[in-house]
Formats: sequence, structure tokens, C-alpha cells
Amino acid sequence: MERVTLSRRKRPLSNEVCDRIVNDYIANGNVKPGSLLPSEKELTAKYDVSRVTLRAAIKSLHDRGLVSVRNGVGATVLPRPPVSSKIVHHLERLASLDKAASEAGKLLETEDLKWGESIVTPEISTKLRLPVGDPVYFVQRSKILDEARIAWTIDWLPTTIIDLDLIRSEFKGSLLDALLQHSELELNYADLEIVPQILNSEIAEHLGTPTGGPVLYLDTVVYGAAGQPDIWGQVWVLPEHVRFFIRRHMQF
Amino acid sequence: MERVTLSRRKRPLSNEVCDRIVNDYIANGNVKPGSLLPSEKELTAKYDVSRVTLRAAIKSLHDRGLVSVRNGVGATVLPRPPVSSKIVHHLERLASLDKAASEAGKLLETEDLKWGESIVTPEISTKLRLPVGDPVYFVQRSKILDEARIAWTIDWLPTTIIDLDLIRSEFKGSLLDALLQHSELELNYADLEIVPQILNSEIAEHLGTPTGGPVLYLDTVVYGAAGQPDIWGQVWVLPEHVRFFIRRHMQF
Repeated sequence: MERVTLSRRKRPLSNEVCDRIVNDYIANGNVKPGSLLPSEKELTAKYDVSRVTLRAAIKSLHDRGLVSVRNGVGATVLPRPPVSSKIVHHLERLASLDKAASEAGKLLETEDLKWGESIVTPEISTKLRLPVGDPVYFVQRSKILDEARIAWTIDWLPTTIIDLDLIRSEFKGSLLDALLQHSELELNYADLEIVPQILNSEIAEHLGTPTGGPVLYLDTVVYGAAGQPDIWGQVWVLPEHVRFFIRRHMQF
Repeated sequence: MERVTLSRRKRPLSNEVCDRIVNDYIANGNVKPGSLLPSEKELTAKYDVSRVTLRAAIKSLHDRGLVSVRNGVGATVLPRPPVSSKIVHHLERLASLDKAASEAGKLLETEDLKWGESIVTPEISTKLRLPVGDPVYFVQRSKILDEARIAWTIDWLPTTIIDLDLIRSEFKGSLLDALLQHSELELNYADLEIVPQILNSEIAEHLGTPTGGPVLYLDTVVYGAAGQPDIWGQVWVLPEHVRFFIRRHMQF
């Protein structure tokens, strides 16, 4: 029996237990897809937690799409989504393309990086709820995988949320990843709109590709805990290099 | 005080409480985005449930992207994703395009409907884990909105999961919706791959549209509770008529 204790970050004990179950049974393949996790009794004993906590942890596993739960049967580990030689980007999680690449054992590089201050346009105003004409920060760059340009990105952010020089100094390729380090921003969730497009000359030039091919445009607004928009991200990704998945759940 | 009781379907009490909170406070705008839900004390009293149940309900609201929760502050109602004159399809939920349309007050019609039996190809074999050469059912149709063709769909399903004549008799436009009525199938979740494409002549012909424009191809495998694939759906949707959203959450 090993008592699960809270790590420094304040988060529910059930989340810790959920992570431990992922580590101990699922991520390493110790329990294969289609097989059952150990019983409630075994798991409460192993982690020295209450049944209420364990059940909350199992519910989190379910919500993360990792297990299915049937009364009187237990929690069955589900098959993982398909893997591929391409980068696989799971869009239901708020995680960067850089992180998706690194999880696939690939490194994305950044080129044509440019930071600056611009003026809020009507479109930016709609996305970030800032007055037209006010200042706004932007950062733009292309992402490179194995010497091929795979994505062109522009992020916009209010000048009030963070010091531009600070975030530049912390930037390692993904603005989202850099801002997620700042827990005081309380970044919370994002609404992503997905639009299939045909490569126009502007985006094709950034990507060093002929016009006319298909491209996926991802329009993301990241919100803080109080519901205010903190980042507007525009990304054009070439589908030759990235596969986009969503695990869809029954709800509502 | 009104005791929340379980409806006929066996589901956790906290889910019922979650739905009641949505109805009583969120869906009707009684608590506006950015404002707090009533206190834990008020809500446990109103619904006559324990704090444990209420907290599970609040966690479900959080998991559904409806509130953010801060310790010592409470649950803040979040802004709803953007609405639009187009159909808005939220891809993180397992729900049909027909349902998304009806929630937007629009009716999708079905044309060129064809049911039949075919032979498992290598591609179908990969998706549905059936032996190549075995029989497989299919249903194909186009979806019409205001006299415009907006989507072309083919679904494939194992001949073992349901009687084809039964499901034909129950079909109202969406195979998923018809199968979801059969709780014995225990449909559970789906993996969706999203691919931007350029309209080729075959799909353009089904849609009555010129070739060369952008189209979103959605490739969905729906899984049952034991993790077996039960439907493979292929849909090509014209972006002029449908906006695709995903609410992305922090996780993993």
C-alpha cells in the first residue's frame, strides 16, 4: 500500500490517483486495450484512498476517453487512437502542435519568427474583446519538420496580460506552452474553429508551397478562468504532415 | 427544496443534478456568462443532495466546459461558443450533423438514400476489424439544407450488430441517431479524423457542386462499450454551410 499524496500544485487527490493509474497500468501497456483494470478493492488498497476518491479517479479516466465503465463489470481499457508516422494532433486537448510533435518523438523548428505590436482591427476586436485601434501584441512564425514547412502561425494577445519581453525570453516555439507556464494567467480552455481552405498565395508563400492545395485553418481563442479571451491564434497546417483527431464522447 | 430523483435510465444522481443546474441556471441565461452560480449551500438545499453529489455535478459542468471553478470563489458560468447563421457542429460531442442542425432550428433533408450489402475491402477491414471479403452493410445519402446539398455521407457497419431492415425502418436521416436509440449496442465514443480536401469529381458530383473547392472530410469510427468498432462513417461537408467547433480543455 502506497499512500498517494498531493504534489505541490493544488489539485484534487482523485486527479493524482487518475494519473497514477495511467502510469501504472495504461501508458506502459500493463493492461492491454479490451482488458479490465484491477478491481476497486485492489486499487483503493494499492493507493490507500477511499472508494469515493477512487471512483472520481475512474470517472476522470472515463472522461479522458481511456476506459469504459460498466456497473458490476469494472473499467475496461479502451484502444488508443491510431498512431501514424505523421504528427498526430488530438484537438480536444488544449496542447500545442509542438507538444504533439514531441510526443511523436519529433522536433518542430521555428523560422521567420517575428514579434511586435500592432493595432486592434475589427476582427481582432471580435476575438479578443479589445477596442478597435488599441495596441495589441502579435507573434508570427513558420513551423518546420524535417526541413519541410508544415505550418504558418500568428498569435495575437492583449498588451495587458503579460510583458512581451518576458514571454519572448521564455518562448521555445509555442506561445501557448510559454503562457501555460504562467499559472497566474489561469488559462482554462479554448474554442477552436476548423476550416478547410485552399492555399492562397499569401499562406503558400509563408509555407514555401505552390498555391491551390488543401490546408487546414485552425482558429483558436484561449480563455482564462474568468472567461476573458487571452490569446487568438491563427494556424494554417499542411495535412501531408499532420493528422488531426478528436475523441468524441456522448454528452448533453 | 425539491428532491432530485433518478429517471428510469440508470445514471448517476450527480448527472441528474448537473442537468438540472444547466436547465435552471445556464441554458435559460438566468446566470449570465461571467457570473457565479449560487453557493454550494444553496444548491445542496435546493436539490436536497449531499455535498459530495453536488461537487460531482459541478465537476461534470466543468468537464462539459460550462463553468470554471475556483476554490473559495465558486463556479463561474463560461461564455457559450460563438453562434452563427450556419449550422454549428461541436465535434467533441458524439452527435450527428442532423442533430446539430435541429439545435440551430434547421431541418436537414436526405436525398439519394441507398442501403445495401457490400464486401469488406482492406480499408474497411482496418476500420471495422472485419475479415476482407466478408459481408458488410452500407448506407449512403446526401444531406440537403434549404435546397442546397451540404454533405455526402457513407456509413459502414458489421452485419452482426443489428438487423438492416429494423434499422432502415427506424432511420430518420442519421444512422448514428438511429443506433443510439438501441442502448443494447452500448455505443460509447468515437475517434474522428479531420482532413481538409479539395473536391474531386466523385464527391463534387454527389454534392452537385463544381470540383476544386475546399471540403472537410470527417472519418469517424464509433466504438461500443467493449471497445469494438461498430460504425465507420465517411462524411464530406461543404464549409459554406457548416462551422466546426471544438472546445479544447487542459488535460493529460
